[in-house]
Amino acid sequence: MAFTMSLDGFIAGPNVSKAYPLGEGGQHLHEWLFKGSAEEPDAAMGREMFDRGGATVLGKRTYEVGLPHWNDTPYPTPSFVLTHEGREPQAMKSASFVFVNDGIESAVTQAREVAGDKDVILMGASVSKQALKAGLVDEIFIQLSPLLLGGGTRLFDDLDVHRIRLDCTRAVASPYVTHLRYSVTNRRLTAA
Amino acid sequence: MAFTMSLDGFIAGPNVSKAYPLGEGGQHLHEWLFKGSAEEPDAAMGREMFDRGGATVLGKRTYEVGLPHWNDTPYPTPSFVLTHEGREPQAMKSASFVFVNDGIESAVTQAREVAGDKDVILMGASVSKQALKAGLVDEIFIQLSPLLLGGGTRLFDDLDVHRIRLDCTRAVASPYVTHLRYSVTNRRLTAA
Repeated sequence: MAFTMSLDGFIAGPNVSKAYPLGEGGQHLHEWLFKGSAEEPDAAMGREMFDRGGATVLGKRTYEVGLPHWNDTPYPTPSFVLTHEGREPQAMKSASFVFVNDGIESAVTQAREVAGDKDVILMGASVSKQALKAGLVDEIFIQLSPLLLGGGTRLFDDLDVHRIRLDCTRAVASPYVTHLRYSVTNRRLTAA
Repeated sequence: MAFTMSLDGFIAGPNVSKAYPLGEGGQHLHEWLFKGSAEEPDAAMGREMFDRGGATVLGKRTYEVGLPHWNDTPYPTPSFVLTHEGREPQAMKSASFVFVNDGIESAVTQAREVAGDKDVILMGASVSKQALKAGLVDEIFIQLSPLLLGGGTRLFDDLDVHRIRLDCTRAVASPYVTHLRYSVTNRRLTAA
């Protein structure tokens, strides 16, 4: 999982739509990628995410709302779209898209196979939560943005889990975000 | 504002009650204060919060549910309880309590007067959000705990603001929490 999240827990502002793919005000979350791109540590962290990705799993909503804006994906890797509908594989500028109809485990397994020794990236809050609940997440990268958005799409909402313990393996601040990296230590859920 | 918060945004687990003043599982949030207390940077951060506090503003719920468990407050300073009910001032082990009936601005002003050159500490999510909305918060200290609690009391819920920009002035990791410090740079709310 890799997300830029506001301090109040949002990965997109209110009213996500094709006009505002990151919600109203949500574009400010990602300033570290643009404004900070020439500076360390932002530049290094941005490169790391691109370099480590070998395949992507995303949801239908991300595919339909998030990507058309650029007619591309931010992760130029083979991409697997989790959806209930049958569809034909499609291509965008820098990635091919395969539609997976039989659940998150299948999508991650297929992505795992093509990723080789690189990482499978989860894109979209819903897909990430499904993977987290299924015990499929190894690491969580959070770029914590110094913003209170006050509304929008929460990353960790309706998680419906008992306590998952993480291990913070990195905390590096830039003027734009705090780069945090966590390993999931007890990925199967435990009772409180 | 000074809170220990899980990565998914909770400052207490589910089902807060007199038996579980921090909610079920919520006690794990504060391990940095106990387990980490002999180690840097946790020890230094813990001392800093105690040393800087000159007065506390808290809500009725925190007063009634959070404090009786210890028959005391974690911040041994003159304390102002925001409540709609008229009450007589009371004392606990290490602090006196004054009940304030005329709103957050009055409570903060009264606390400010006795705090001298020290800080006014806000305790409790509701009081903190009222102060944040009223433009009364200078700094936010977050101890970000590497836990996903999955439910409980959110710190930044129903914030009902348009975008507040913060400036991250500290990010220090320990094995227990990441210590984050923010200045509130645009405290009056701006439209998205």
